[in-house]
Amino acid sequence: MKNAQLYKYSQEFFAVQNEEVHQICSDFEPNAIDTDYVYWLNFHNLQDRQSLELLCQKLQLDKLSIESIFQPLRRSKVEEYSNYLFFQIHTLRNNSATAAETEKLSFVVGKSFLLSFQDHQGLHFSDVRERIEKSKGKIRSQKSDFLLFRLLDALIDEIFVKTEEVSDQIDLIDAGIHSNMKSHLLREIETQKRELIELRKLIQPIKDLLAGLENMDHPLIDPSNKHYFKNLRNSCTSLLEDVDAHKQILESLSNLYYAAQGQRMNEIMKVLTVVSSIFIPLTFIVGVYGMNFKYMPELEYPYGYYTVVLVMILIGAGLLSYFIKRGWLKRD
Amino acid sequence: MKNAQLYKYSQEFFAVQNEEVHQICSDFEPNAIDTDYVYWLNFHNLQDRQSLELLCQKLQLDKLSIESIFQPLRRSKVEEYSNYLFFQIHTLRNNSATAAETEKLSFVVGKSFLLSFQDHQGLHFSDVRERIEKSKGKIRSQKSDFLLFRLLDALIDEIFVKTEEVSDQIDLIDAGIHSNMKSHLLREIETQKRELIELRKLIQPIKDLLAGLENMDHPLIDPSNKHYFKNLRNSCTSLLEDVDAHKQILESLSNLYYAAQGQRMNEIMKVLTVVSSIFIPLTFIVGVYGMNFKYMPELEYPYGYYTVVLVMILIGAGLLSYFIKRGWLKRD
Amino acid sequence: MKNAQLYKYSQEFFAVQNEEVHQICSDFEPNAIDTDYVYWLNFHNLQDRQSLELLCQKLQLDKLSIESIFQPLRRSKVEEYSNYLFFQIHTLRNNSATAAETEKLSFVVGKSFLLSFQDHQGLHFSDVRERIEKSKGKIRSQKSDFLLFRLLDALIDEIFVKTEEVSDQIDLIDAGIHSNMKSHLLREIETQKRELIELRKLIQPIKDLLAGLENMDHPLIDPSNKHYFKNLRNSCTSLLEDVDAHKQILESLSNLYYAAQGQRMNEIMKVLTVVSSIFIPLTFIVGVYGMNFKYMPELEYPYGYYTVVLVMILIGAGLLSYFIKRGWLKRD
Amino acid sequence: MKNAQLYKYSQEFFAVQNEEVHQICSDFEPNAIDTDYVYWLNFHNLQDRQSLELLCQKLQLDKLSIESIFQPLRRSKVEEYSNYLFFQIHTLRNNSATAAETEKLSFVVGKSFLLSFQDHQGLHFSDVRERIEKSKGKIRSQKSDFLLFRLLDALIDEIFVKTEEVSDQIDLIDAGIHSNMKSHLLREIETQKRELIELRKLIQPIKDLLAGLENMDHPLIDPSNKHYFKNLRNSCTSLLEDVDAHKQILESLSNLYYAAQGQRMNEIMKVLTVVSSIFIPLTFIVGVYGMNFKYMPELEYPYGYYTVVLVMILIGAGLLSYFIKRGWLKRD
Amino acid sequence: MKNAQLYKYSQEFFAVQNEEVHQICSDFEPNAIDTDYVYWLNFHNLQDRQSLELLCQKLQLDKLSIESIFQPLRRSKVEEYSNYLFFQIHTLRNNSATAAETEKLSFVVGKSFLLSFQDHQGLHFSDVRERIEKSKGKIRSQKSDFLLFRLLDALIDEIFVKTEEVSDQIDLIDAGIHSNMKSHLLREIETQKRELIELRKLIQPIKDLLAGLENMDHPLIDPSNKHYFKNLRNSCTSLLEDVDAHKQILESLSNLYYAAQGQRMNEIMKVLTVVSSIFIPLTFIVGVYGMNFKYMPELEYPYGYYTVVLVMILIGAGLLSYFIKRGWLKRD
Repeated sequence: MKNAQLYKYSQEFFAVQNEEVHQICSDFEPNAIDTDYVYWLNFHNLQDRQSLELLCQKLQLDKLSIESIFQPLRRSKVEEYSNYLFFQIHTLRNNSATAAETEKLSFVVGKSFLLSFQDHQGLHFSDVRERIEKSKGKIRSQKSDFLLFRLLDALIDEIFVKTEEVSDQIDLIDAGIHSNMKSHLLREIETQKRELIELRKLIQPIKDLLAGLENMDHPLIDPSNKHYFKNLRNSCTSLLEDVDAHKQILESLSNLYYAAQGQRMNEIMKVLTVVSSIFIPLTFIVGVYGMNFKYMPELEYPYGYYTVVLVMILIGAGLLSYFIKRGWLKRD
Repeated sequence: MKNAQLYKYSQEFFAVQNEEVHQICSDFEPNAIDTDYVYWLNFHNLQDRQSLELLCQKLQLDKLSIESIFQPLRRSKVEEYSNYLFFQIHTLRNNSATAAETEKLSFVVGKSFLLSFQDHQGLHFSDVRERIEKSKGKIRSQKSDFLLFRLLDALIDEIFVKTEEVSDQIDLIDAGIHSNMKSHLLREIETQKRELIELRKLIQPIKDLLAGLENMDHPLIDPSNKHYFKNLRNSCTSLLEDVDAHKQILESLSNLYYAAQGQRMNEIMKVLTVVSSIFIPLTFIVGVYGMNFKYMPELEYPYGYYTVVLVMILIGAGLLSYFIKRGWLKRD
Repeated sequence: MKNAQLYKYSQEFFAVQNEEVHQICSDFEPNAIDTDYVYWLNFHNLQDRQSLELLCQKLQLDKLSIESIFQPLRRSKVEEYSNYLFFQIHTLRNNSATAAETEKLSFVVGKSFLLSFQDHQGLHFSDVRERIEKSKGKIRSQKSDFLLFRLLDALIDEIFVKTEEVSDQIDLIDAGIHSNMKSHLLREIETQKRELIELRKLIQPIKDLLAGLENMDHPLIDPSNKHYFKNLRNSCTSLLEDVDAHKQILESLSNLYYAAQGQRMNEIMKVLTVVSSIFIPLTFIVGVYGMNFKYMPELEYPYGYYTVVLVMILIGAGLLSYFIKRGWLKRD
Repeated sequence: MKNAQLYKYSQEFFAVQNEEVHQICSDFEPNAIDTDYVYWLNFHNLQDRQSLELLCQKLQLDKLSIESIFQPLRRSKVEEYSNYLFFQIHTLRNNSATAAETEKLSFVVGKSFLLSFQDHQGLHFSDVRERIEKSKGKIRSQKSDFLLFRLLDALIDEIFVKTEEVSDQIDLIDAGIHSNMKSHLLREIETQKRELIELRKLIQPIKDLLAGLENMDHPLIDPSNKHYFKNLRNSCTSLLEDVDAHKQILESLSNLYYAAQGQRMNEIMKVLTVVSSIFIPLTFIVGVYGMNFKYMPELEYPYGYYTVVLVMILIGAGLLSYFIKRGWLKRD
Repeated sequence: MKNAQLYKYSQEFFAVQNEEVHQICSDFEPNAIDTDYVYWLNFHNLQDRQSLELLCQKLQLDKLSIESIFQPLRRSKVEEYSNYLFFQIHTLRNNSATAAETEKLSFVVGKSFLLSFQDHQGLHFSDVRERIEKSKGKIRSQKSDFLLFRLLDALIDEIFVKTEEVSDQIDLIDAGIHSNMKSHLLREIETQKRELIELRKLIQPIKDLLAGLENMDHPLIDPSNKHYFKNLRNSCTSLLEDVDAHKQILESLSNLYYAAQGQRMNEIMKVLTVVSSIFIPLTFIVGVYGMNFKYMPELEYPYGYYTVVLVMILIGAGLLSYFIKRGWLKRD
């Protein structure tokens, strides 16, 4: 994959230029933009800062916006300018093992163009690209605001997929917790909880951004397209509800884990108690007749030994039946 | 049951056509609709996609809506079009063992018709059908928006019934927890908690949809009928409150479970401690006089043995009375 | 008590007719209503359905409303009709042991009349009746909306009393938990928690109903009386806050219970550990000199026995002082 | 302190009359009020009901308001009348040990007068009195609404002080929990939690009352003074946040308490386990050679005894080093 | 560092005067203010109260505002006056070890001047100073409201940094909890929780203040600058979300801690139980043959000893294999 791509499309014409950043930036000529087309420039990294800054200046972006593109992002941002809209959000990093690994995405939406800047090479938008190429849906007949919708939709879809991965993990844990009680399961539960916390932190700002877009009164956002952003916001709401529901299920599973831990402790203690309670008194008895007193008449009795053994059997049986009656010998 | 049903009714006339999907779809002629009637077409599965798509096209549904009917549903949806309303929600699957098993329902509400698409064969609407047939209530004198109200009402009723099933299960657990403390009870508690989590996920989107209907300003929704949707929304609110109350009761029951677990551990340990604390010191004493030293004057005393036995009885009785005094021998 | 009562009052005149349902229903003649009076008909059960339906029809109630009076109530309801208002709520059943036992109350508020239907015989409104009879407060100079306010006030007062009963129970538990730690206390705590859950379920719908009354724009509700309903709503808010505060106190008490349980376990284990740790090593020592080896020089020493006893005393005292130093012998 | 005080002040003149209730009530003549002054009558108890009722009637208060002054207060109240405002709230009782002990305060705010009724003698307002006497701040140049602000401010300050007392108690507990783990600490934690619950119940209604004052459109409340009430409401908000933060810290401390309890249990069990695991096997060995079989060749070996002792030392050392390696002998 | 600094800047000119409080206060002449400049006076302590009060009086500040500057701050404050705005907030104290150590900051924003009062010497604003000096960003071309934005931004950045410190601490704990289970980790967890509670208490009032600035309609706040304050408010929201997410992660970690504690207890008990259950019965057996009865035929058998040893080996091996089968000998 190259580091930058230019998609130029209208209803009649579609072109992808997959070139290096420098090339695309210097070739792009804002004055020569054909307003029948939408130009989408997607940059896969920010290494060639010089070329990118040049491009931004050609498009008359504000100095503050340009600076933001290259700085780490603390909070998602929506900024309106007269000639463009500027957004920044965090999103899941492609192929990342955990939701804690995110990357910054910056969008510049202008009249006939849309720039998107990724921190790292990654295929967030392959579905959108395919739609453009195959002309699926409405994307070829719409303006840059619709393209923005499609790109955000693609990002939310990625989060959906990640949420479902968590859901699958939870099912695995659930199966595990029913069959055995390994200690790593709790760690797994807590890991998934943290994934959900991270996902929540990703989704909330996107939802706020979408609310901002819905309420925005800017010529670049066609009012008749606002319901797309509303739909995306509903998706975010439903994602947040899913995340919360998953968190509750994990809570439930850790309860089961703790109870099973307590259960095992009970069983261990019962074994110890039953064994000790039977043999400690018996050991005392045999100890008595192990004493070396000169005058211990029982020792002289011919059936002394047998009597003691009998007594011990009776005591042992009595205690055992007591424990059986209290149900300590069957697992529950 | 056939795979599709057409109900045609007005104040004077009522007809049910219980036919295969293909037949109904090809017979239905939008231009020939008699506006004195409401036509309700209920499809029990989506297998004959071709016929259904044909029908939708005849009714001039948007391409996106048609596509949505056949795709899995991520979030509930309300979409307004000039000539129809389009809804999609999840609902409980008929005869399903758990609230986690849901199915997608799609509704298309037009001027004199209502289409409903179920993913699976199931009797969600037998009560509505009966009302139409027997002309109970207002349904025969009303338009498609009232029919929609009735259908949603039927779905909410199903959730009510499921919620009451959970409530009954909770009563069973409650009875169980008071009589004995089997470990499966906690599992049962957590199972019911998850049922409630799933029910909450079902109800919330329906409530949102109803709020959308209330605020909607569309010719197909008669303003004088809006209070029906408001009533349904109130039902959803009350259902959510029930779900939360049930969840708290389950919380309460798991507290009892844990406390009982701790209680049993205490009892087990008390048995062990009482037995050990009495017999271990006594065993030590008899051990002393089991030593083989040549010069142990006590061993020679004529009453040595009896003295030791007496001392041991006194020690045992003393310890026993100490434990009785501390209340360790009665269960609490 | 009879099954129905008719109160007819104005500023000059007050009459109670305490008769059977049938009698009152057939006697009541809507056309003959004297609009200087308010007629309040209170029915203590719904057994004579025929008479009651007749009365409702005479008052031109909607078919749906009439049906609702006789059906179980799932959710509280406010319905506006041009000639009357219709409410249904759940309330505490008179003399019920637990807040889970509720009954349905239905109200029909018309221009000069108010019907109230109780599911069971019970004295919810004796205070209101007394006010009318003794002409206390404003009730005799006001219309049916003020009577409604008084009736709802009486119901909320019943819930206040119930809440205070819970509060008293909590004080009892509190006293109990400080003096001893019986296992039934936790059960008692959980019982009271469930009472509070049930009370919350009762109060919330009444509060919603009162909000509905406040916002209602109906000729039967005099705007200058709306602050009465607002006051009642504030009472409900404060009741809900009380319920939540009580719930938190119960949470606090169960924490104390669990901690005490853990405390006792610690104490039990300390006894076991101290006894075992002192006597098990000593028993080992006496065991050594109980061995029957032919060549064990210590056994021959004249002071062997006394030396061993001395060593054991030293070991025992050492261990004991160690445990005392670690504070295991004093209760904390 | 006398039972009632009359403060009469304007910018030029200030007078305090510290007399008995009867005297003040009969002397006060509404028609003779000098509107250049504000008359503040503060009653320290409600015993002389007759005189107080007389005063209220002279001031043309509503019958319902008068009745409320003498009845226990269930919920805080704001009532607007054309000629006066009537408030009732709960506040901390002076010098009370716990926030659960509250008293009712009633305020009547008129054009040039303000009545305040305390249930019990107590110095809630000594700061306000001082301000009037010393003419600090704006109080002497303002009307009765500003006086009301000052009185409410004084009450909120009392709650601030109480909240800080709780905060200090929490610091003490914190110090205690770090140095030792006495069981009374948990009780102390729970006591402070309940203080916070009670404080929350006090603050919330005052906040609601202040919101009511802010939104009120009454000639007695000068709009330019509303920001005073807004400031007080912000104080209440911040108090509620403090209360919640304190509650979370207490939660944190009880977690530490429980963990320490578990920690001690672990340590107790480790001592028991180490001692038992070393000496029980050894005791078995010496038991073996204490058996009285006729043919036990080891007993005849000249070095049998020394061999066994050596073996036991090796076993003991092995077990000990195993436990040391597993870290059971150092405290953590 | 001196105790006060005067920054005077416009687009053309920038001057810092780093002088003692007295000097600056007496030199500053409000009438001589050049409105092309913004004068920012930053005071690093409040010790020279007299001079500061003099300055405030020269600037015609309200008596109440002046008093507030020198009093401890209970709640953050925004006050509008015709000629200036007055703010007070708590912020992190510079170089403080814990978020619980805060200091009060007061701001007076006038037409061409801004006063800031710190309780203690500390470098909250070095970044802003640098921007002014190096003329970075817009600060030199803007009025006092923009300077206020920059100062608040600097404070919020400090809180961001503190929050990230907590985040780093959490990562350390996390690493610690995975490798070993020292008891101080829980204390560390609870310490960080309290940091977060304190941070929340800092952030919430600043967020409220910013909301107040956004809604304020005052000539000193340029409407076109309001989006700066909105951006800061969004930062606060995102900070609060971070704080909550961190708190949940700490919750998760304490769960792991408790589970590990329980796990260790289980392991300790298993060791005790396995050792006791094997050796206590065996000790009983050897005790039997240590009895001194005259008639014990087994003792006379030539192979008695070997038989008993064999039996004991069998019993021991049986019990051991039983425990191995139940999985008690492998750690989990």
